[in-house]
Amino acid sequence: MTEDIRALEFVDGSLRLIDQRLLPMHLEYLEARSEEDVFQAIRTMVVRGAPAIGGAAAYGAYFALCEAEGNADSFKARCTHLMSARPTAVNLEWSVRRMMRKAEETGYDKDALLREADLIVREDVEMNHRLSEIALSLIRHGDTILTHCNAGALATCGWGTALGVIRTAWDAGLDIKVYADETRPRLQGARLTAWELTEAGIPVTLIPDSAAATLIREGKIDLIVLGADRITANGDVANKLGTFPLSIVAKEYGVPFYSAAPTSTIDFSMKEGKDIPIEERDPDEVRMIDGVQIAPRDVPVFNPSFDVTPHQNITGIITEKGIIRPPFDRNIERIREGETL
Amino acid sequence: MTEDIRALEFVDGSLRLIDQRLLPMHLEYLEARSEEDVFQAIRTMVVRGAPAIGGAAAYGAYFALCEAEGNADSFKARCTHLMSARPTAVNLEWSVRRMMRKAEETGYDKDALLREADLIVREDVEMNHRLSEIALSLIRHGDTILTHCNAGALATCGWGTALGVIRTAWDAGLDIKVYADETRPRLQGARLTAWELTEAGIPVTLIPDSAAATLIREGKIDLIVLGADRITANGDVANKLGTFPLSIVAKEYGVPFYSAAPTSTIDFSMKEGKDIPIEERDPDEVRMIDGVQIAPRDVPVFNPSFDVTPHQNITGIITEKGIIRPPFDRNIERIREGETL
Repeated sequence: MTEDIRALEFVDGSLRLIDQRLLPMHLEYLEARSEEDVFQAIRTMVVRGAPAIGGAAAYGAYFALCEAEGNADSFKARCTHLMSARPTAVNLEWSVRRMMRKAEETGYDKDALLREADLIVREDVEMNHRLSEIALSLIRHGDTILTHCNAGALATCGWGTALGVIRTAWDAGLDIKVYADETRPRLQGARLTAWELTEAGIPVTLIPDSAAATLIREGKIDLIVLGADRITANGDVANKLGTFPLSIVAKEYGVPFYSAAPTSTIDFSMKEGKDIPIEERDPDEVRMIDGVQIAPRDVPVFNPSFDVTPHQNITGIITEKGIIRPPFDRNIERIREGETL
Repeated sequence: MTEDIRALEFVDGSLRLIDQRLLPMHLEYLEARSEEDVFQAIRTMVVRGAPAIGGAAAYGAYFALCEAEGNADSFKARCTHLMSARPTAVNLEWSVRRMMRKAEETGYDKDALLREADLIVREDVEMNHRLSEIALSLIRHGDTILTHCNAGALATCGWGTALGVIRTAWDAGLDIKVYADETRPRLQGARLTAWELTEAGIPVTLIPDSAAATLIREGKIDLIVLGADRITANGDVANKLGTFPLSIVAKEYGVPFYSAAPTSTIDFSMKEGKDIPIEERDPDEVRMIDGVQIAPRDVPVFNPSFDVTPHQNITGIITEKGIIRPPFDRNIERIREGETL
């Protein structure tokens, strides 16, 4: 079985995070020991990927309770701060709110909160394995799969969603090949996905994002699988910038297009994708790469971190409770009501 | 009037080229003094952009004749070598073949060849001004225009094609704004287009290529104008990687999509886009940026320099002989027969 990578791990009272900004050249760890440490790690993308952010934030909420020294208001204020680290991924808020509920239920019991954070992580890994097993029905021997950004072990609490699907298929003996979009501007495909797949021994070819269309038109892609940062009640998917144009090309050429995500990524309270807050990040993410200037110093930049793919462009959403297919609104409602599809 | 930038200039017996690989941080020049110098400058992208390559190659053919010392076979061999510098842009072959014909006509007269190279350059600049004037009819006050890669003064012998259109509109007093795709992997949009427009004082915002789709869906783009490296007899357009997916998004959301190019970019002998040879470049263009590693060192890469946009996705092709619109095959045939549209 392909070995696992742990983006985050709670060891001896601190949260050990792989500093994902340094991959693939350096595998270094950062120790977060406070709510503020976790906030900064999320904000600066030491840890990124919706489910990994959720996992890290759970420990951030535990630190918040330790720092609040029993003061509920102080705890809540710290949690509110933590939730503001990044706006788009729903898992951040989902995880912190769950920790806040657990704190209330247990009379602000620190040990109970640490156990809850551990549980969130364990559940995420289990959900990823489950959704990966479910996705096996979609993949045939010899398939070539295209993925965008990084929805791997690094983006989650372990195993991965889209890359979990790929790793499970590989471990099942399916002879698959992967194309990885480099994913500008932060290059998570080049830095993280290419690294994870290379480490796992799964054949991967790196491409500029714009090359995907040529491969799709030439019939070289059998399936597209990528992650999600927030899924709305109608099945619209916010995911890393570049997902939306890829979905249009896939639709034009009839290539199946799947988002893989645990149901914790579904924001049942939000009706449609246009309501999702889209984070705009620092212009220097586009003007510079690793400190190297690649554009005029002060040129204005539009740098949205995510885009929204309308459900009409999506073949299905792979979750631990089954594959959600159209009509998405009705089937997502069934998930909300506790059904398994 | 916006000032002009000269990618190439013949001065005192040598071809002075802006080293476009160093922009926007350094404006440095490289002196080419032999056919081999010009070959290398084209191959390594010191000079790039189909019409600029054509202009540089004309002087390369002049150097070839000087080096051949009156030997026609030696001259032809050097010209064949020169034409092999890059495979996709038709202007390279077009220009060198024109120089070869002129050499034969004039009994291998060096002075005549130098005059012919000067003429090729002068004609290119004139054609760009003419097509830019023609395009004025397409642009309204307040329009926001999206462009991809660099089809500016740097990509031509002067003024530019797509950026020529934009500069002429600006000089005409139209209050336009521009979004420039950064254009991975070589980042000509970030390095060159953002620089040219900033120098000209035209408002420009730089975006990752994948952000164009979001802007288009939000109705923020009125018009897309970009260049061409080869246009086939049916109107298919080979242009910088990323043009093709952009055309699909534009079609999906009904945004007018124009290619601007002189008629020397039309390859009348080639029936359709799938016959165009597409250059694949060094994997390190994707694995590294300015010497900085951004992906696993040996990860396989697919790095096609261009893609082909089917004519069905194109609203029109702006040339110095008028705007070619559907049916493209018939209207391109009219151009071939010497008509003005």
